[in-house]
Amino acid sequence: MLPTSLNLRLPAWLDASAQPRALPSLEQRMALVLDLAARNVAQRTGGPFAAAVLERDSGRLVSVGVNVVVPQHCALAHAEVMALGLAQAGLRTFDLGSPGLPPMQLVSSSQMCAMCLGAVVWSGVAEVAFATTAQDVIGIVGFDEGPTPADYEGSLRERGIRMLPGVLRERGLAVLRGYVDDGAPVYDAHH
Amino acid sequence: MLPTSLNLRLPAWLDASAQPRALPSLEQRMALVLDLAARNVAQRTGGPFAAAVLERDSGRLVSVGVNVVVPQHCALAHAEVMALGLAQAGLRTFDLGSPGLPPMQLVSSSQMCAMCLGAVVWSGVAEVAFATTAQDVIGIVGFDEGPTPADYEGSLRERGIRMLPGVLRERGLAVLRGYVDDGAPVYDAHH
Repeated sequence: MLPTSLNLRLPAWLDASAQPRALPSLEQRMALVLDLAARNVAQRTGGPFAAAVLERDSGRLVSVGVNVVVPQHCALAHAEVMALGLAQAGLRTFDLGSPGLPPMQLVSSSQMCAMCLGAVVWSGVAEVAFATTAQDVIGIVGFDEGPTPADYEGSLRERGIRMLPGVLRERGLAVLRGYVDDGAPVYDAHH
Repeated sequence: MLPTSLNLRLPAWLDASAQPRALPSLEQRMALVLDLAARNVAQRTGGPFAAAVLERDSGRLVSVGVNVVVPQHCALAHAEVMALGLAQAGLRTFDLGSPGLPPMQLVSSSQMCAMCLGAVVWSGVAEVAFATTAQDVIGIVGFDEGPTPADYEGSLRERGIRMLPGVLRERGLAVLRGYVDDGAPVYDAHH
């Protein structure tokens, strides 16, 4: 029979970090995400990317994700896809903007690629924050970011999603450079 | 603990259709996909969308997928994401364009949204075919297709991916109209 079940798991080392907690400031939230990205590189369990979904106002952590493309044999298993998918699974809703929920925020180590930008639009989050830009990722790591729209921020704004770029960007740059210095693979389909 | 495992399953009725076989012509492949989309509507197990990954030249079926956004509580569980993810899981590779594999084709009932266009670019498929266009989907069902690039086909072509639009489009239109006539939900985050 053909496969009928898609199972994507975060690395085992992450279990200890996947504890509920509240992170009041955006810098605290991004510091957690960048720590996860750096550990994903150090543990060699995927690309230098991590993300988290939190309640925007309280800072309650809803989900975390790291890039698991290579170990999980899935090109779609970007950090943002994992964090958004796990948040929806945990809350048992396909819409993180449901009337019964507080506004949600995606905090990502890097600006979303074309696929993850689309995923953000479908997810129902109210806000997205990231450290490094798409240009940083292309320049340092060399990943293609895919067919993003010309007016990236506008494509979010017109759907009521606020974008907060450049949060702890220097620390984010260090994570990307660490990945390259480590000789780790550029694993998109064009390399 | 926060969720650490994302498990997305195709509907149980689909198990009988998930049998290996070869479909030589593109019309046969699309007929299978449109049949799955129509059955997903009839069985009320998701949106009016289906997809399949096949070896482009032999027509050997590698995976099938249908939209399971609502039943699986996952906004990312579009038919194309399911088919691409399941193909990669089945072949145990994140790159369907690996040198050891024959060229792969994604056959989808509708033109890909922004997220699925990005997913196609990362997937490694050589070719994508679809029946109905994004404008058909917007006009008939009312789904937002997300921030797709101005030059949609060019964004695929420049990455070496061939696009085959309008395959069995009339039959695809009938599936979309059937979904609307059925009073089924428009479940993206903006409705």
